[in-house]
Amino acid sequence: MSIKVAILGFGTVGSSVARILCDLKPQGVELTHIFNRSVARKRAEWVPSTVTWTESFDEVLASDANVIVELVGGLDPAGEWVRRALEAGKSAVTGNKKLIAQHGVELDRIARAHGASLFYGAAVAGGIPVIPGLQHGLAGDQVTRLEGILNGTCNYILSRMEEGAQFADVLKDAQSLGYAEANPSEDVDGYDARAKLVILSRIALRADLAVEDIPVRTITSIAAIDFEYAGELSCTIRQISRAETRGGALLATVGPMLVPKNSPLAWSRGTENMVLVGGKYGGDVVFSGHGAGGHPTAVAVVSDLITLAHGSGNIDLPSRKAEVSGEFLLRHYIRFVVKDRPGIVGEIAGALAGEQINIHALFQRPGFGKDSLPFVVTVEPCTNSALKRALAKISSAEWLAEPPLDLQILEPEEPLK
Amino acid sequence: MSIKVAILGFGTVGSSVARILCDLKPQGVELTHIFNRSVARKRAEWVPSTVTWTESFDEVLASDANVIVELVGGLDPAGEWVRRALEAGKSAVTGNKKLIAQHGVELDRIARAHGASLFYGAAVAGGIPVIPGLQHGLAGDQVTRLEGILNGTCNYILSRMEEGAQFADVLKDAQSLGYAEANPSEDVDGYDARAKLVILSRIALRADLAVEDIPVRTITSIAAIDFEYAGELSCTIRQISRAETRGGALLATVGPMLVPKNSPLAWSRGTENMVLVGGKYGGDVVFSGHGAGGHPTAVAVVSDLITLAHGSGNIDLPSRKAEVSGEFLLRHYIRFVVKDRPGIVGEIAGALAGEQINIHALFQRPGFGKDSLPFVVTVEPCTNSALKRALAKISSAEWLAEPPLDLQILEPEEPLK
Repeated sequence: MSIKVAILGFGTVGSSVARILCDLKPQGVELTHIFNRSVARKRAEWVPSTVTWTESFDEVLASDANVIVELVGGLDPAGEWVRRALEAGKSAVTGNKKLIAQHGVELDRIARAHGASLFYGAAVAGGIPVIPGLQHGLAGDQVTRLEGILNGTCNYILSRMEEGAQFADVLKDAQSLGYAEANPSEDVDGYDARAKLVILSRIALRADLAVEDIPVRTITSIAAIDFEYAGELSCTIRQISRAETRGGALLATVGPMLVPKNSPLAWSRGTENMVLVGGKYGGDVVFSGHGAGGHPTAVAVVSDLITLAHGSGNIDLPSRKAEVSGEFLLRHYIRFVVKDRPGIVGEIAGALAGEQINIHALFQRPGFGKDSLPFVVTVEPCTNSALKRALAKISSAEWLAEPPLDLQILEPEEPLK
Repeated sequence: MSIKVAILGFGTVGSSVARILCDLKPQGVELTHIFNRSVARKRAEWVPSTVTWTESFDEVLASDANVIVELVGGLDPAGEWVRRALEAGKSAVTGNKKLIAQHGVELDRIARAHGASLFYGAAVAGGIPVIPGLQHGLAGDQVTRLEGILNGTCNYILSRMEEGAQFADVLKDAQSLGYAEANPSEDVDGYDARAKLVILSRIALRADLAVEDIPVRTITSIAAIDFEYAGELSCTIRQISRAETRGGALLATVGPMLVPKNSPLAWSRGTENMVLVGGKYGGDVVFSGHGAGGHPTAVAVVSDLITLAHGSGNIDLPSRKAEVSGEFLLRHYIRFVVKDRPGIVGEIAGALAGEQINIHALFQRPGFGKDSLPFVVTVEPCTNSALKRALAKISSAEWLAEPPLDLQILEPEEPLK
């Protein structure tokens, strides 16, 4: 008995799913419906004539298709369609990270209640089997730490900047290559990665986080000079999504961080994605590959369909609501740009000392003018909020040419035993 | 309803499986039996008193345990026990690479015929979820290429040699650390990695290979000087297990190879394992982590048990028998050690030209005596057999101080589109 599949949304990923199904003909998976608005202009010659093209979701719902593949994206109406399909006992496969991050727990419950399954391997790091790897291969560990490069656009921008390019130029390239939207905020400000971190935290750390509770920081404040100073610390800069259980607390954050060059996270280039999972028993496991794009994302969708066709249901690992804090205790990098005059370092040191923060090192490259002089202070492990309080004390100093930039430094850790 | 689990073999991995089951108490998994020879001396305080300890496999078979975890290793009697359990309708989880490499296809068939499941996530790269990742997350791709660092002992030896240590010293360290056996042949000569490559080829390339058909080469012929010359080519040396479909043919080989330093395979250190999977649609995916050791391997076993407890059966992806050839068309590195005299390079060039093999470059480091002078020739892509024929022609040359060493050079490839 085959599963009968209806694809909702025949864009880049949807047509790639159809293409792979037509090419590989996986046993037990039959494509029966393709739904799209103005479907007439979507019709493709290479799709078998047995497939029904439709503009009506109700037609799909009433049909004998027993699995929907939701690739429409966004919360509305995609969420409503997934919900109605599950309530009708149809299983659903989706790549919709926003929907799963916000409503995954509820949709999982609806699926269970109606004997249906909900798969979303394509929602995080498209072509990299992180979600099935966690659910099937690491369920036997107690994962305590997640570190990921979950947004290919940011990784493209930052890895190009590492090679000397300027933010604005690279963003323009990313937009013309189709990696970034006209309004890039979703990517560069961390919202896209944050939704993915919520999904991974649920599966790996068994913690249900509220999306808006996780602090995000933009990568737009990173300048070329930061890569130079990071290099002096044997580091580079990447957008890192990080979650960790420590004691009973759950720490999570998304934003640019200094990453040691000998960490796998520093090796990612271009639009590559990478996920590092730290387990109590198995130590660190790293997954990497193409996180986005039509074909890699379609591979994740088709893999979920094959798993469904083999009669495998969801691996429902129990998760529970967790409060999030962004208070990692980490070393920090602080880049100042100042109008130089004597006494500045003393004022900075005083502000930091007031919060019990110790300076670790101070770097100043030659070759800059007195009016706009960048230099860097690194400090010993402290929380970001303590650092913010310290920096607030000097925020109105007349020698600041621009507000200071503070970044967490991701330190290599011994795997927890 | 819980699955009732009998562990066969209470050694490092077996006791670690029991430990994780007692610590994490995964829902639906109940440990009921532990089998070991002379079981009295194995009995552990921390195992719940409800568990039955036994020296009799027949007692396990007759019991209500419905899943056996085979961690005895070797073909006999482990294979017979797995077979009898499956025939009795019990599912089996095993970390036995030798058994699955040689008899996996048959055991899968027996499992299917008796409504049982056979899982072996622990058989390859222990703590890294490569097998579940392939079965659940990449089933929707057409994998055309596998490259792996599948033997932690070889990787420990070669990554230490890269830092300047001598083979014999590192082997001794590996033995005292418990990474290598007193007789290290299984590891250093490639047999261990070959069994794992057979298992991965079946799952990823859907090809059933006969273990003994895959050519293996030892790492024992690698000397410190080879790392120096490899470095001049921006490469290092790793034991690589490689399989690839090209046209209708299947190429596979295991042995030391030159690996470019910008390849993820060059980044692996110590006993780390790594698997790179190249797919037609999804491009390259890399998995890495701890491939062996009690805890990481136990994580794979417990994960398989949790998958079973969730009612997920095997993902039976169809595979078919395939003939193996080791005839990759690759650049080669050839290291000669000669008693120097004029004309040697001419003789080598002549022998290579006779097989239509073009020299690419020649390297000779200063500082060696005329009696035992090492130098390296690299050649443009050729098959290993053509190179062997060329080298055979000069094998009795009186200027050879030792037989030449030839290594394939793993070149970065564009993902197949």
